[in-house]
Amino acid sequence: MYAFGVDIGGTGVKAGIVDEKGNIVVKSSIATDRSLDYRIIVKQIAQQLKDLAEKGGVDFRDIAGIGIGCPGAVNGKKGTVDYSNNLCWSDVPLLDELKKYIDLPSKVSNDANVAALGETVFGAGKKYSDTVFITLGTGVGGGVVIENKLFEGNESKGTELGHTVIVHGGELCTCGRRGCLESYASATALIRDTKVAMRKDKNSAMWDYVGGDLEKVDGKTAFECAKKGDYSAKKVVDDYLEYLGEGLCNFINIFRPQAIILGGGVCAQGEYLTNPLKRFIKDFSYGGDKSPSVDLLVATLGNDAGLIGAASLILGGGVETLL
Amino acid sequence: MYAFGVDIGGTGVKAGIVDEKGNIVVKSSIATDRSLDYRIIVKQIAQQLKDLAEKGGVDFRDIAGIGIGCPGAVNGKKGTVDYSNNLCWSDVPLLDELKKYIDLPSKVSNDANVAALGETVFGAGKKYSDTVFITLGTGVGGGVVIENKLFEGNESKGTELGHTVIVHGGELCTCGRRGCLESYASATALIRDTKVAMRKDKNSAMWDYVGGDLEKVDGKTAFECAKKGDYSAKKVVDDYLEYLGEGLCNFINIFRPQAIILGGGVCAQGEYLTNPLKRFIKDFSYGGDKSPSVDLLVATLGNDAGLIGAASLILGGGVETLL
Repeated sequence: MYAFGVDIGGTGVKAGIVDEKGNIVVKSSIATDRSLDYRIIVKQIAQQLKDLAEKGGVDFRDIAGIGIGCPGAVNGKKGTVDYSNNLCWSDVPLLDELKKYIDLPSKVSNDANVAALGETVFGAGKKYSDTVFITLGTGVGGGVVIENKLFEGNESKGTELGHTVIVHGGELCTCGRRGCLESYASATALIRDTKVAMRKDKNSAMWDYVGGDLEKVDGKTAFECAKKGDYSAKKVVDDYLEYLGEGLCNFINIFRPQAIILGGGVCAQGEYLTNPLKRFIKDFSYGGDKSPSVDLLVATLGNDAGLIGAASLILGGGVETLL
Repeated sequence: MYAFGVDIGGTGVKAGIVDEKGNIVVKSSIATDRSLDYRIIVKQIAQQLKDLAEKGGVDFRDIAGIGIGCPGAVNGKKGTVDYSNNLCWSDVPLLDELKKYIDLPSKVSNDANVAALGETVFGAGKKYSDTVFITLGTGVGGGVVIENKLFEGNESKGTELGHTVIVHGGELCTCGRRGCLESYASATALIRDTKVAMRKDKNSAMWDYVGGDLEKVDGKTAFECAKKGDYSAKKVVDDYLEYLGEGLCNFINIFRPQAIILGGGVCAQGEYLTNPLKRFIKDFSYGGDKSPSVDLLVATLGNDAGLIGAASLILGGGVETLL
């Protein structure tokens, strides 16, 4: 048994046929022009899927369904994309439109949710049934898997884990609140804080690292210079880890999952990221040794996370969508 | 069909027989001596239940099971009380012990969880299937109901909603962290902040309200004096509501329930509590008008919440216990 996995992004669509073990049998990418009407894009996707089946020599009767991951606000139950800035979509009846071309069961969820399910079913978390997934990128995304099913909240509008305040009155967040986890633990926040530290410390090794150009600062700058012992860089990293640790402990106390899985660019730091966080979790999560321990993992599906995750909507436990 | 509901507290046990509509057919209270071995207390409870059935004229064959609510750390799946400071219990195999006397299906959960389920199945939230319950008392307790079932997390150690940091580096919490919601939104915190404000403002009407005695300050002091226009009291209340609002918005963004239900002593303030919070939620929860609205309710089961809630473990949707 197979499933189509479709990962819709702002500039293109990655799609593939995935088997029950999470292996990609065949995949392809198409560029999309987001100025086009959604109907045209959906028609292109349908053709992409038909081409994949032919190329992979997979009979449609062996394909259990189509799973789709999509940025923005998705209503899983209705199969609609309520709004997506990246796609310039608003109130798009995605699954109904796709059904005009391919009559297979189909499910859609947002990209962070899909990655959460994919990592739990086929990736870093495949030993576990109950996980919280946090992606540390431009923003901080979240997904929650309970008994191998995505938990999404009413109209799929829950698990906005990045938009939980940890610093009352703190940095302004894109959501309009102050002090959200996203405004401290995203790569964007890390870069902001790295630049602030560099402006304060003209002797920091971070200046050399970026060739004196503040615009070359990225999510690695502070981590790499901290490893070499630079004081200001170390302070940036320590603060970053403390904020992230606060968020992780909050999610542990709320969900008490078996594991937390970290994804996104910052995860390239591996143990430099996870080891201090493991200590923080051990010290500060509720109940200490009397509560079940929570493993901290780094996502493993990489660039195919979206595609495999999308397929896991069909091949995995599916979605626990409310209303 | 009926269920036994048992509400075990530090000084006594309330128990009753509850019908399918959440009505109490018959109830009783017994005092307990927590220096006694748990086996003796469980034997007393078993006798209390048998007496109730006789007194209420209810045949055991019409009783579907026994639901128990208990303070402390409970493992619902195992039916054990891992530890409870209030009861001086540690590793108590509660359900196994009870089965020696009464052979009925039985379930146990902690008191906040049980109240959450009871309010959702039979109380303020009975229109809803998906709720978050927050109790504002000595501490801040939480319970989460998803599709009419309690969500408890691994080994029932989740939904410690009071132990989520909203003020990084803030007030010390009983759990060892700083800045937990509990350390800002509990009645204990409200009383602390009322006293601080009074010490700063010797002319505050709050001094008259408590007859000049700081030890008479309670959770009502600031609210009552704010209603009369006292500046310092109003500031205490406004700050309290803002912290609580931050917590509620966090839970909305995480769970996007249909409703949040507030319980505990502070709820006696009714609309003075809920109206400002409704505005806060409207202004700050993620997605604004584009996300489904979340109703804010006050618990209605009152003193019987524990007993009816316990019975709802049997009569309601039960528990989604992981592992």
